[in-house]
Amino acid sequence: MAKAFPFTAIVGQDEMKTALLVAAVDPSIGGVLVFGDRGTGKSTAIRALAALMPKIPMVEGCPFNCDPDKKPAGLCARCESGTEKLKSRASPIPVVDLPLGATEDRVIGALDLERALHDGEKAFEAGLLARAHRGFLYIDEVNLLEDHIVDSLLDVAASGENVVEREGLSVRHPARFVLVGSGNPEEGELRPQLLDRFGMSVEVKTPQDVAARVEIVRQRDAFERDPEGFTKHQQRKEGRVRRQLQKARESLDSIEVADEVLEAAATLCMSLGTDGLRGELTLVRTARAQAALAGRDVATLDDMKALAPSVLRHRLRRDPLDESGSTARIDKALSALFD
Amino acid sequence: MAKAFPFTAIVGQDEMKTALLVAAVDPSIGGVLVFGDRGTGKSTAIRALAALMPKIPMVEGCPFNCDPDKKPAGLCARCESGTEKLKSRASPIPVVDLPLGATEDRVIGALDLERALHDGEKAFEAGLLARAHRGFLYIDEVNLLEDHIVDSLLDVAASGENVVEREGLSVRHPARFVLVGSGNPEEGELRPQLLDRFGMSVEVKTPQDVAARVEIVRQRDAFERDPEGFTKHQQRKEGRVRRQLQKARESLDSIEVADEVLEAAATLCMSLGTDGLRGELTLVRTARAQAALAGRDVATLDDMKALAPSVLRHRLRRDPLDESGSTARIDKALSALFD
Amino acid sequence: MAKAFPFTAIVGQDEMKTALLVAAVDPSIGGVLVFGDRGTGKSTAIRALAALMPKIPMVEGCPFNCDPDKKPAGLCARCESGTEKLKSRASPIPVVDLPLGATEDRVIGALDLERALHDGEKAFEAGLLARAHRGFLYIDEVNLLEDHIVDSLLDVAASGENVVEREGLSVRHPARFVLVGSGNPEEGELRPQLLDRFGMSVEVKTPQDVAARVEIVRQRDAFERDPEGFTKHQQRKEGRVRRQLQKARESLDSIEVADEVLEAAATLCMSLGTDGLRGELTLVRTARAQAALAGRDVATLDDMKALAPSVLRHRLRRDPLDESGSTARIDKALSALFD
Amino acid sequence: MAKAFPFTAIVGQDEMKTALLVAAVDPSIGGVLVFGDRGTGKSTAIRALAALMPKIPMVEGCPFNCDPDKKPAGLCARCESGTEKLKSRASPIPVVDLPLGATEDRVIGALDLERALHDGEKAFEAGLLARAHRGFLYIDEVNLLEDHIVDSLLDVAASGENVVEREGLSVRHPARFVLVGSGNPEEGELRPQLLDRFGMSVEVKTPQDVAARVEIVRQRDAFERDPEGFTKHQQRKEGRVRRQLQKARESLDSIEVADEVLEAAATLCMSLGTDGLRGELTLVRTARAQAALAGRDVATLDDMKALAPSVLRHRLRRDPLDESGSTARIDKALSALFD
Amino acid sequence: MAKAFPFTAIVGQDEMKTALLVAAVDPSIGGVLVFGDRGTGKSTAIRALAALMPKIPMVEGCPFNCDPDKKPAGLCARCESGTEKLKSRASPIPVVDLPLGATEDRVIGALDLERALHDGEKAFEAGLLARAHRGFLYIDEVNLLEDHIVDSLLDVAASGENVVEREGLSVRHPARFVLVGSGNPEEGELRPQLLDRFGMSVEVKTPQDVAARVEIVRQRDAFERDPEGFTKHQQRKEGRVRRQLQKARESLDSIEVADEVLEAAATLCMSLGTDGLRGELTLVRTARAQAALAGRDVATLDDMKALAPSVLRHRLRRDPLDESGSTARIDKALSALFD
Amino acid sequence: MAKAFPFTAIVGQDEMKTALLVAAVDPSIGGVLVFGDRGTGKSTAIRALAALMPKIPMVEGCPFNCDPDKKPAGLCARCESGTEKLKSRASPIPVVDLPLGATEDRVIGALDLERALHDGEKAFEAGLLARAHRGFLYIDEVNLLEDHIVDSLLDVAASGENVVEREGLSVRHPARFVLVGSGNPEEGELRPQLLDRFGMSVEVKTPQDVAARVEIVRQRDAFERDPEGFTKHQQRKEGRVRRQLQKARESLDSIEVADEVLEAAATLCMSLGTDGLRGELTLVRTARAQAALAGRDVATLDDMKALAPSVLRHRLRRDPLDESGSTARIDKALSALFD
Repeated sequence: MAKAFPFTAIVGQDEMKTALLVAAVDPSIGGVLVFGDRGTGKSTAIRALAALMPKIPMVEGCPFNCDPDKKPAGLCARCESGTEKLKSRASPIPVVDLPLGATEDRVIGALDLERALHDGEKAFEAGLLARAHRGFLYIDEVNLLEDHIVDSLLDVAASGENVVEREGLSVRHPARFVLVGSGNPEEGELRPQLLDRFGMSVEVKTPQDVAARVEIVRQRDAFERDPEGFTKHQQRKEGRVRRQLQKARESLDSIEVADEVLEAAATLCMSLGTDGLRGELTLVRTARAQAALAGRDVATLDDMKALAPSVLRHRLRRDPLDESGSTARIDKALSALFD
Repeated sequence: MAKAFPFTAIVGQDEMKTALLVAAVDPSIGGVLVFGDRGTGKSTAIRALAALMPKIPMVEGCPFNCDPDKKPAGLCARCESGTEKLKSRASPIPVVDLPLGATEDRVIGALDLERALHDGEKAFEAGLLARAHRGFLYIDEVNLLEDHIVDSLLDVAASGENVVEREGLSVRHPARFVLVGSGNPEEGELRPQLLDRFGMSVEVKTPQDVAARVEIVRQRDAFERDPEGFTKHQQRKEGRVRRQLQKARESLDSIEVADEVLEAAATLCMSLGTDGLRGELTLVRTARAQAALAGRDVATLDDMKALAPSVLRHRLRRDPLDESGSTARIDKALSALFD
Repeated sequence: MAKAFPFTAIVGQDEMKTALLVAAVDPSIGGVLVFGDRGTGKSTAIRALAALMPKIPMVEGCPFNCDPDKKPAGLCARCESGTEKLKSRASPIPVVDLPLGATEDRVIGALDLERALHDGEKAFEAGLLARAHRGFLYIDEVNLLEDHIVDSLLDVAASGENVVEREGLSVRHPARFVLVGSGNPEEGELRPQLLDRFGMSVEVKTPQDVAARVEIVRQRDAFERDPEGFTKHQQRKEGRVRRQLQKARESLDSIEVADEVLEAAATLCMSLGTDGLRGELTLVRTARAQAALAGRDVATLDDMKALAPSVLRHRLRRDPLDESGSTARIDKALSALFD
Repeated sequence: MAKAFPFTAIVGQDEMKTALLVAAVDPSIGGVLVFGDRGTGKSTAIRALAALMPKIPMVEGCPFNCDPDKKPAGLCARCESGTEKLKSRASPIPVVDLPLGATEDRVIGALDLERALHDGEKAFEAGLLARAHRGFLYIDEVNLLEDHIVDSLLDVAASGENVVEREGLSVRHPARFVLVGSGNPEEGELRPQLLDRFGMSVEVKTPQDVAARVEIVRQRDAFERDPEGFTKHQQRKEGRVRRQLQKARESLDSIEVADEVLEAAATLCMSLGTDGLRGELTLVRTARAQAALAGRDVATLDDMKALAPSVLRHRLRRDPLDESGSTARIDKALSALFD
Repeated sequence: MAKAFPFTAIVGQDEMKTALLVAAVDPSIGGVLVFGDRGTGKSTAIRALAALMPKIPMVEGCPFNCDPDKKPAGLCARCESGTEKLKSRASPIPVVDLPLGATEDRVIGALDLERALHDGEKAFEAGLLARAHRGFLYIDEVNLLEDHIVDSLLDVAASGENVVEREGLSVRHPARFVLVGSGNPEEGELRPQLLDRFGMSVEVKTPQDVAARVEIVRQRDAFERDPEGFTKHQQRKEGRVRRQLQKARESLDSIEVADEVLEAAATLCMSLGTDGLRGELTLVRTARAQAALAGRDVATLDDMKALAPSVLRHRLRRDPLDESGSTARIDKALSALFD
Repeated sequence: MAKAFPFTAIVGQDEMKTALLVAAVDPSIGGVLVFGDRGTGKSTAIRALAALMPKIPMVEGCPFNCDPDKKPAGLCARCESGTEKLKSRASPIPVVDLPLGATEDRVIGALDLERALHDGEKAFEAGLLARAHRGFLYIDEVNLLEDHIVDSLLDVAASGENVVEREGLSVRHPARFVLVGSGNPEEGELRPQLLDRFGMSVEVKTPQDVAARVEIVRQRDAFERDPEGFTKHQQRKEGRVRRQLQKARESLDSIEVADEVLEAAATLCMSLGTDGLRGELTLVRTARAQAALAGRDVATLDDMKALAPSVLRHRLRRDPLDESGSTARIDKALSALFD
């Protein structure tokens, strides 16, 4: 595969970068939706994140990315039933592309016809969902995804398991991943159920000052003319962020969230009228992940406020009496409540 | 499978919890439709119910969940034709998920191709309807279910039998289950025939006070960070409700419904102009189940009135002269007639 | 199969019950269409009729329900070509359900793949149309039937024969049955060609007095709690109607229809402007069947008038100058002409 | 097959009966389209015609109805290549039903899979078009015929040959037949190309006097109660018309059409503005067939005029300045030109 | 196949006959579109042309109609790779019918399944496009042709080659033919890309004088009653035109087109505002072919003017300021520029 | 294949010719979209470009056009894993036609069924995308391309790799090509994502002076009457441009783009409000390629300005306040900013 443009060389777009890092710290937050104009580097950023990911232990040879430190209940059938100790291998956190034209078989997996024909044995060939387990599933132009693929994704995302039944073959394996989608809102809306699966959403825009644009074009041109030299030059910065991520993931479980933060999250969501309680639950988790990234032990009100626009932006109902955009409404509510 | 959030730890949502318990006491009432905003815990409640169910006797090894205490006429072909006494096994009441993308083969069952190819023997592979027999069939986002699956469900729900004829294979097995559906009315209407199959409908809403919301988020966060500890802590409460359910199911047949209740049910339905007589029939049955849950021998007018909104809400025609919602109209009629 | 609610225990709905009995006396009248609200017992009545049917002689082992007393020309190929005398067996008049989701293969029959693969022999597996021969074919929600199934039904209903040609297999067998359909006119219109196949149509409504409703709910609840006891209790009444039906079928051929009745039928149809002459032909036949049920030798003007609404209701064109419904227009014409 | 109602017992409907007989005398005239209300006996008349047809010589055992008296060029491949003299057999002129739901394979023929699998031999199984060769192809509800079947019909009707190429099998056989269609113009229009294939069109209406209606109902009722007795009673009349038909077919080639008739036909068509020249060509041929039926040697202006409405009715363009119907416009033109 | 009506016996329709002959002289002109009312003899003329065609040399046994005098580059793979000298055979210029219902396999060719199964050898079975190479491809009702067939035609017509890739089989053979289409503009428009493929278009109308109509009907009736006698009688005239065609084809390459003609063509097209330059290129070529038919060495302005209406009629954009038809606009432009 | 009309003999159409040459110098610029009237020589120009292309080194026998001078990471699996040194062969830069009706299998490649069946070996048969690697992929009538083919193209164009997974076969090979599309904007719009893939767009029009038109027709007619003579005559001119192209490709990496050009590009794009930064990135690259073609070492503001209309024309949003076309708006902005 071609080299990816380095994450740390991306000019601007801070909200997007923060959201991606937060989701990388706590996958249970549920993914990032990046929307905006074509040509603003959405795909570049996400492919860059893949190159930055720390390694995690995986069971050697397991096509389902099993975690050797998990209890049997969280493993795939093969790893669960094995009698020997599982061999561990440090592997990169997977970032899997879901191409728009992918068939359902390729996404969820299918009968391995070759082995069926050859060995007369029914075997399962893992799909993209298996490859994305414990990592990221990236969908470019997510608003163009076909409905039946969306259906499968929603079922799996809801249960954390992929259940495939094809021609008498029945396979069930864990499939937990961070959905990362990018799209252009002008080209089609997302189904609300799918929108709801994203923990955060960020909007990227074409920068409007010449210096930044020249800088971006120069970097991009330099990278494309000599990808290896460019990457090497960025190596140290990349390493620093990778270690920060690694540490944040390890410390996450021990970070406390103050009662004040819980109450503030609930008050904010009520004031904005979001449906259900996923908004405040996500505010709490992103605050915790943000604290982890910052190397702190306690998540504060400021952590929550910093990520509130990304967490709530796509959860607001259109308010006919308030013509301002979602971000403005969230900022207004934050000021009114907490300033 | 991941642990389910305990039923007894659900904060609020009393109408939904009552309806689910009543349907669990008398499956012939015909299912519960839960609708409301996303993120209000609809799916959580239903998966929680599964964990709460008492055990029932099943024929060991029967893929159709046959009841060893039934007369042959109510058994599947295999159990019916067996010459030996059927072995009984106490099994949990099944709660089966029907994924949106499920094929018709998976739902109603299909020829077992593997055995066909291998042993040259035509065998039937039981589908989800067989697995749900004597239990619950849960459809999340029921308003998005495909039409041909709905057709199959309606045929089976009407006859209590699943008849599959595929490539010269003809199988017929009992399939009686409680349909439990959840959905968001904003995302598509239910076909009236399907709506009619639900005995009760309840609406859930996002709670509107901060304390309750903080409590829910705290519980949910606590559960997700340590599912096993949380579940253990709730064990005793769960056991109490499970035994209550068990007793109610056993006493159901002996509970009397007073004539006064029958007349009140008919008067109420006439006054509300519901189509046909399924409304009052269901009022009578839910009153009986409610009395059973309460440990009483006689179902009273109050039992009937308590469940009337759940039973009638989805059976009302839109009244152009009465702008108030269904629940308000039912409450008004109850007051006018019985207060 | 579960026990059916007894026909004679149905409260009210006299027009529907009469039409069903008349069609059972003379199948050439061409079926009954029952329409009305959900929950008014349409399906119950039709399934009840099945339980009431007298037995008729059938050729033992013939999958096409052949009549052993028929001349060869009216038999299926197997019965026609047999050299031995056909064995007769008294069998219930069949009442066959046509499920909405049934495939065309299941309806009209198909190649028996199992025998083809096993014995290298092309055999025909009879479909629902064969099973319904000489009996009733019941279609619930007839207005939702798929178009290509309707096409097959119309071809067979017009010719009285089912001709199946599949992969070099050519089978032809008699298929004469009474179509019984139920539906809710609010959920879709019938294709006029299909409407035309029904000899009679009746409309059922939810009863509007409390006593009747309580009575119905009580009967229904009693039946569902103890189907066997309830059925036993109704046995004698059922037997009486069964014998009445049996006698009426035997006497049908000898009943005279007075010229006065023929002229009255023609005058009535002309005055109502029905298309073609099927209206008056059906009036004559239903009058004859009605007389047979009453045990009389001659069909009178009153017999014709009694059934005229059921026979003509669905044959009227919408009259822009007459806003009253079909039934009212027929009653008006009857009064104007014969009172 | 059930007995058909005798042609000669049909009450009224003279224009339809004449058109059917004329088409039976000269098949090259190109078929009859019968349209009108449901229940006016359209199908009855056409099925009756089948029973009336004289016999014609056919090659014994030829699935394509070959004529033993034809030159090889007009025979199917098998009959053409045979070395022995073809055996002749007197067979009824075929009248073949084309059911609405017929597949394309059944209509045009297909590979005989049984022989392919069994004998490893590719053989052709003749379709309905082959069976209709030299006879009639009857399509009830012709306006509901599927487009791809219409396409096949048009190709064959235009070339007089059926060419089937399926999986390496290539068969070509003569297929000339008289299309007879019936339909209800209210239920869908005919594609103009198909309309154009019909030589004549006739409209049938429900009779509007009581005596005729009573007579029809009485005949129909009598026939259905005792088909054999009724048919026997009509035998002599049927024989007379059958011999008239036979004689007319034999004399057709020797009948002269006067120049006056050709000019009158052209003048009439020009005055009515029909497209192309098929109108006048058909006027000439129907006049000749009419003379043959009448036993005359010369076709006269009166023969042409008698059939002009049937020939031209469906060939008129809608004239926005002349609100009268097609028949009235033809009658007006006939009067203006020839009276 | 049945005898075709002789080309030289067609009464009137001179523009159509000229266009067909011109296209037969120079196939690179690109086909003729004949449109007009049904029944005006469009198909008759084109089938008549087939019978008139002179013979051309073809490689014996080549399914792709290869020209034995071509350089290898213009041959099919089999002829190109052969080591022996190709055997030549004088064959009629093919005129191939493309039936409306033809499958894509039949049009472009397909794997020969029989040989595949029998000999285990992948062989190509040539389609209609191969059979039409170096001749005519006739599409009746061209405006009803299915889109995917049109796509295949356009690809082949643009490249002069047919490339078929099916299941690992890859065949490529030359396929150059004159498209001849007939249609009724009232029954659907042609896709502009397809319209553009036709070099000329002519419109035929029903003649409007009695004598001509009587003559046509008489000829047609005479032909159909005795095809062989009629054809024999026309033999000499047919031979004369056949030789004229033959000579024109041979002399085509040596005919000069004066500069004056090129400039006139460009001026005419600019004045009419046709898109692109195909209009004038075709004017030049038709003038050359017309001169060849007339036996002249030089194409003149008159040759160009004579065919200009046929060449340009279908290339004009609708001009909202000029209500006159295409033909009138071309005539006006010709007068304004050259008179 | 037939000879192509020589690129250097194309009269006029300079913008199109420049854009094609620039794209041929730097394929990373991303393709050319040519739109305009039918018959203006769009396809001719692109097929002409193919004949002009210099040769490049390719790995002998590699179906994926691998570059023997690439590092393993940029090779296909077979070339990458080979142990021997790759054999190089000078091959023409491929120009591959993508026919409108091409199946997805043919475009992206598929399992080679023949080898699968014969050798029991799963092999991949390279598709058109593989054949176009390192060259041009030409789509005529690009606006008519089917959506699922567009999806595949977009995935491959975005990643530079083609990933095919079919029936257990998984192949991945580099696929970088210059998309060249031609179309008529009146016949359908391009999907914005596809439009965005084109680096440049040019519009061609029918020339509006007689001399040019006569010249074009004369050239075209001369070419078609004697392709070989015509091509020979143009040989030297073709060689000159081919060498110019070759040199420009080699010098591209060493050409500098002044900071002034980067800033001017950013300013221009901001002033025109194009989405994202692909506009300015492409301006920079086309300026560099243009300088290379001119044989200069430094790309200047004039290089950028010269190609700005082609680069930006299809990237402008419709501006409701500025009715002038895209080209005029770009010219206006260029004048305002740089004159």
